[in-house]
Amino acid sequence: MENEKLYDLIIIGAGAAGLTASIYASRYKIKHLVLGKVPGGMTLEAHKIENYPGYKSISGMELMQKFQEHAKNLGAKIEQTEAANIKKKNKEFEITDSKNRKYQTKTLILALGTKRRKLNIPGEKKLLGKGVSYCAVCDAMFYKDEVVAVIGGSDAAVMAALLLTEHAKKIYIIYRKAKLRAEPIMVEKVEADPKIEIIYSTNVLEIKGEEKVEKIVLDREYKGNKELKLDGIFVEIGSTPAVSLAQKLGVEVDQENYIKVDTYRATNVPGVFAAGDITSGLAKLRQIVTAAAEGAVAATSVYDYLKTK
Amino acid sequence: MENEKLYDLIIIGAGAAGLTASIYASRYKIKHLVLGKVPGGMTLEAHKIENYPGYKSISGMELMQKFQEHAKNLGAKIEQTEAANIKKKNKEFEITDSKNRKYQTKTLILALGTKRRKLNIPGEKKLLGKGVSYCAVCDAMFYKDEVVAVIGGSDAAVMAALLLTEHAKKIYIIYRKAKLRAEPIMVEKVEADPKIEIIYSTNVLEIKGEEKVEKIVLDREYKGNKELKLDGIFVEIGSTPAVSLAQKLGVEVDQENYIKVDTYRATNVPGVFAAGDITSGLAKLRQIVTAAAEGAVAATSVYDYLKTK
Repeated sequence: MENEKLYDLIIIGAGAAGLTASIYASRYKIKHLVLGKVPGGMTLEAHKIENYPGYKSISGMELMQKFQEHAKNLGAKIEQTEAANIKKKNKEFEITDSKNRKYQTKTLILALGTKRRKLNIPGEKKLLGKGVSYCAVCDAMFYKDEVVAVIGGSDAAVMAALLLTEHAKKIYIIYRKAKLRAEPIMVEKVEADPKIEIIYSTNVLEIKGEEKVEKIVLDREYKGNKELKLDGIFVEIGSTPAVSLAQKLGVEVDQENYIKVDTYRATNVPGVFAAGDITSGLAKLRQIVTAAAEGAVAATSVYDYLKTK
Repeated sequence: MENEKLYDLIIIGAGAAGLTASIYASRYKIKHLVLGKVPGGMTLEAHKIENYPGYKSISGMELMQKFQEHAKNLGAKIEQTEAANIKKKNKEFEITDSKNRKYQTKTLILALGTKRRKLNIPGEKKLLGKGVSYCAVCDAMFYKDEVVAVIGGSDAAVMAALLLTEHAKKIYIIYRKAKLRAEPIMVEKVEADPKIEIIYSTNVLEIKGEEKVEKIVLDREYKGNKELKLDGIFVEIGSTPAVSLAQKLGVEVDQENYIKVDTYRATNVPGVFAAGDITSGLAKLRQIVTAAAEGAVAATSVYDYLKTK
């Protein structure tokens, strides 16, 4: 008797890469399953997306709803769960999810994306959810007429600051370098915004507060003071790839811990492919459109792989 | 005096790759111009697109209008003209268009896509536009209740046949191989369609007709006859990259004449990048989403290139 729970493909991760892989897998008629803790992935956190071709301006949540509907419309089965363990079993792979359910598959696409990087300073853990946040889109609205800081200088940091101007009365951007590294069009916007003040070449050493965030300690004086009073701090200092599952299979990663893939999005382990932010990527440009393209390529490679086995 | 007509970037081609490169170039604040004979490119010819993530089903024309509006909304200047010549002039590149206007630029993104391949058989040229077509989307409606043939076995061929079922009364698909190479989901559809008849392992030798197409000659008998009476023939046997301009700059191409690019979409000529169907591509998967991703990467590479020069 054939194993009914044996899939041809399991896609782990339901962000832009995973959902596009599913769209293409459905078109190739590959029997597949998508496992994703939060369908939509990191894109959900983007307040406003203006560089996914075809949509002039759309929220991350709305765009990911469209991706998900698109995938489901073509027959995708999406299980909202977390893959907790994975191992090679005979010729197949076996995944165990956080509810201890098991899934078997002939091939895998790892599209787990990245996890937020932390400051790792005193007070950060204690005041998480009490003024410390890693998601401006989720929490900005709670800071109406308050003073907040965004830590970081990337697109994500600058976008968080711009979003916060719609709620908070004052936003500091605190960046360790002398120049923001966000897209110039975004940098211009924050520089011109009267609510935003940028503190360059400065690090945060500590977050202080009893019940909630009250102030932060800087590593150098700003306007004559090393302490800055505020109500919230948004940490936007990047992400690290979510590769713990991949490493259980012996998948190779690069120096920065991203999964190494070839142009076909194949890893070093036969039958295991990867796409999106978790990989060494498309020229290291980690965008929705590049993640989607990688998902399309990975699904095509799985199709070719299954045909020749 | 600075040359006012000197651009930082000229994008040649206004399809999915070129327009996305423009979207990203605008976000990087790169002074650029898009030159495109027909904004929208090859995608325009697609009757129905169901694999561009975020749009469950959309016509190629509509999707490319969205891309174009998106690019224009960010400030893109799109010149509807054909680049006729190109040369290196001092440190810059000079383009001459078909109306003999000249444009100077520091960098280039070649996104010219591909041109339709022809059968090169007797009657094909003479009866062009009189029953011979290379664009089902453009011409299908002229064959109401008539008999037509689609030559080819790719996605494009199968899609053309499906589109023709909405107009013609009978559609032959004639393919030189024993099995269609289109996406399985599409193959299923044509096989199930009562209006479509597939003739495998057969080539067309000649197209006959006086004022208009009357019949075609096959290289082997089908139902006892080497001739097939019909009113129209749609040639869908693929495309070749439009590399004549690129070759004037000494840009390297691969064995199939596609432009060789590295992961950053750089060609062998400094300052010249390429994206989309004209390149060796993203794992040779030539899709709208991969062309768009390549456009995004190429614009990012131009940004980095201009910053460091």
